[in-house]
Amino acid sequence: MSAFDPPPVPASVLERCRAVLGPAGLVDDPQSIEPYVTDFWRQHRGRTPAVLRPSSTEEVAAVVRLAAEAGVPLVPQAGNTGLVRGGIPDESGRQVVLSLERMTRIREIDPRGEHIVVEAGCVLETVQQKAAAIGRLFPLALGAQGSCRIGGNLGTNAGGVNVVRYGMMRDLVLGLEVVLADGRVWDGLRTLRKDNTGYDLKQLFIGSEGTLGIVTAAALRLFPAPRDRRTCWLGIDGPAVALDVFELFRAETGEVISSFELLTGFGVEAACAHLPGVRRPLAEPHPWHLLIELAWTFEDGLAEKLDAVLERAIEMGLVRDGTRAESEAQRANMWRIREGQSEATRHMGFIVRSDVTVPIGRIPELVERMAAWVAANAPEVTLIPFGHLGDGNLHFNFVTPPERVDTLKPLLLERLYDEVTALGGSISAEHGIGRMKREALWRRRPPLEQELMRRIKKALDPQGILNPGVILAEPEEGL
Amino acid sequence: MSAFDPPPVPASVLERCRAVLGPAGLVDDPQSIEPYVTDFWRQHRGRTPAVLRPSSTEEVAAVVRLAAEAGVPLVPQAGNTGLVRGGIPDESGRQVVLSLERMTRIREIDPRGEHIVVEAGCVLETVQQKAAAIGRLFPLALGAQGSCRIGGNLGTNAGGVNVVRYGMMRDLVLGLEVVLADGRVWDGLRTLRKDNTGYDLKQLFIGSEGTLGIVTAAALRLFPAPRDRRTCWLGIDGPAVALDVFELFRAETGEVISSFELLTGFGVEAACAHLPGVRRPLAEPHPWHLLIELAWTFEDGLAEKLDAVLERAIEMGLVRDGTRAESEAQRANMWRIREGQSEATRHMGFIVRSDVTVPIGRIPELVERMAAWVAANAPEVTLIPFGHLGDGNLHFNFVTPPERVDTLKPLLLERLYDEVTALGGSISAEHGIGRMKREALWRRRPPLEQELMRRIKKALDPQGILNPGVILAEPEEGL
Repeated sequence: MSAFDPPPVPASVLERCRAVLGPAGLVDDPQSIEPYVTDFWRQHRGRTPAVLRPSSTEEVAAVVRLAAEAGVPLVPQAGNTGLVRGGIPDESGRQVVLSLERMTRIREIDPRGEHIVVEAGCVLETVQQKAAAIGRLFPLALGAQGSCRIGGNLGTNAGGVNVVRYGMMRDLVLGLEVVLADGRVWDGLRTLRKDNTGYDLKQLFIGSEGTLGIVTAAALRLFPAPRDRRTCWLGIDGPAVALDVFELFRAETGEVISSFELLTGFGVEAACAHLPGVRRPLAEPHPWHLLIELAWTFEDGLAEKLDAVLERAIEMGLVRDGTRAESEAQRANMWRIREGQSEATRHMGFIVRSDVTVPIGRIPELVERMAAWVAANAPEVTLIPFGHLGDGNLHFNFVTPPERVDTLKPLLLERLYDEVTALGGSISAEHGIGRMKREALWRRRPPLEQELMRRIKKALDPQGILNPGVILAEPEEGL
Repeated sequence: MSAFDPPPVPASVLERCRAVLGPAGLVDDPQSIEPYVTDFWRQHRGRTPAVLRPSSTEEVAAVVRLAAEAGVPLVPQAGNTGLVRGGIPDESGRQVVLSLERMTRIREIDPRGEHIVVEAGCVLETVQQKAAAIGRLFPLALGAQGSCRIGGNLGTNAGGVNVVRYGMMRDLVLGLEVVLADGRVWDGLRTLRKDNTGYDLKQLFIGSEGTLGIVTAAALRLFPAPRDRRTCWLGIDGPAVALDVFELFRAETGEVISSFELLTGFGVEAACAHLPGVRRPLAEPHPWHLLIELAWTFEDGLAEKLDAVLERAIEMGLVRDGTRAESEAQRANMWRIREGQSEATRHMGFIVRSDVTVPIGRIPELVERMAAWVAANAPEVTLIPFGHLGDGNLHFNFVTPPERVDTLKPLLLERLYDEVTALGGSISAEHGIGRMKREALWRRRPPLEQELMRRIKKALDPQGILNPGVILAEPEEGL
């Protein structure tokens, strides 16, 4: 037990929580606890004496009050699909998981006002479906959408494949309901488009990974549903050309670009080889590929607009080959290749994953620098940078021989993070910091930035009971 | 002198500031001070012993350090076009104005990265022009754009006529450089689209009206410049129909709506009567009007799309009459009517202004309730609600007999703010709180919200030297 460990969780506190939540509201047998303490990739495992499962804001408030009185640390959790160990407890066994999975009500949905009010335990895909049912779009879309939950999307400020058009989760939030560290409830569930009445408190909680308050519900923006959507797949020479194509599409189709994704030839071939039913969209292999989707609210006419800009790209010599999806099946095949990149390449070795961003113009440099470094220092590794080119956000995956992972992983990530930092980028574009990237972050950011965050943390959670050790080290750790 | 007045500003502090800033950097003769202490409408006037005019971030930092050491309150000011007395000092004569007007450098502009890095003293229109010169759009647009400055746009989270499409100033910010209350500089001038590395500190400063830090520079988003733009003017029955038209346009032209503005027949007739050269866009008067602008990046084809949706609106019986601008002169005439509403109606009495917002579906109710109240309680007043219908944000102007203003103004505003609050709205959509709306706000918001803001204020400005009395009352005032 190190100096900063909190004391063990008193049994009396858990009993009082059980009394508040009822038998379904508290889980404490080891087998049932398992899924709440294991991370998405099943590579990390924390410990907890119990999982609290409140079913209402009042119940969340009641257990937070109990925890606050006893100084018991809480780890808020929604869908537990996070990738940075921000939603599972540490190994001390002295942090209690607070799961929001039973808070799944849709409180309000308003087509004209273009908003939906949902509880933090709603699954993202459910929210998308509710919106679609009234002819609206909730645009947040990402691989885990069938199991991730809104609370986690808010806590990590989730991104995904539509950010180039609709922004991150932060951009989709109109209001929040938050249980504060002392158990009081801040009702900030407004549905206004504009509200300049003092500090925008909701911004504090979005992306704070459960360390400043526990979001119990959110008012989210909806959008008109596109009625015409067109998807294309291009074979190109490399990232520099990808930027030229992006610039062309921005200039000529700016507001209707929904997705703009980059893939490597290696990753595409891996998908075709290893994912059942997946076919190569173009006849021949190419060094790099782009998956581009346009959508608009007009009834039709988008195919002609897409053809016009593709023709221009061909005239400019930017594209080696290209095809437009002619059916939903062809479109689904393209997206399967994109979403299956990690799955497909896992057959070739251990995947060291990352989620980095640089100013978009620096992407070719970043790819070149990392390719050169890998070639010189770890030639047994295959570099697979892919993802959201339109946002300047690539996932640099490294396929690594399993027996060399322990040695190579830290070297690869440290090098990547150094290059990203040197290019004015960030070591986490959309996954957050959690416990996993904390040291890597603070080694690269000025102490003043950490000091400001600590002041905010102290202002909103003076006892430090909300997700301690996530983003910021606990003060006693001296980080 | 009340209990909470700070002591007079020591002459030695001002002398040290002068030594840092040079002779052009400190203004202290009463005549030169005048424009810095008078508000935009020339209705309010504060006092200050001096105006500091630093020309660089380092100079701002140096004078903030001096002020912090001596406990001297500072009032940051940019273009001084604010409407809520947030940028002029109070009447105590013990607050020093810190003007950013000499910090006007464009530090960087990147067409491919779609960003521009500007200093806080840049005039908004200059930023628009710099963007246009490289074929990009900086979309923030508002009446004062020829004289308001970026620092003020950031401090108040400015809105304007393009919010329905591009969002508020907050949505346009990628990064900030901020001088903190102790004179240290936070360099958060990143140009990334995604950056999930802890709390999003920049959000704190945007819209905080200079009370948490002094923004010295900002990295702002640019957008592809639209190549085809179409503007139309419709005569309609009233706000309920306006919502139907909005819903139709959202469904059929969603992503290309740039502006969606509502006007009263009274306001339009006033503009035609009193603004030189302005002509009625439609042959006959109508009770209400809509000014709608669409724009897209495609080269042409938008006129046909607009005609199609207008035809549909006519079929549905929503529109009494309508016209599409056929020339830049016709478009300018339409916008002159919209932008000249306050100017035109000033000929008819004293204008009591407001800036309120409700969930968009509640707009007709708000208009009806206020019209009924005015008819019953102040029949000598003409109600003119107009503005950004697409954002749920109307400026309710009241034309009031000058001799009755002192009596009627508080009654009208209190009633409006009560109705807005009852409908789930906000008493400031885009102008901010300043000193003017502070009491009106806190009478209507839960104490917890004020407490949270106070904690943030205390965390970032423990001495309370940044724009004290703005948004939050000073603690000694007990508000």
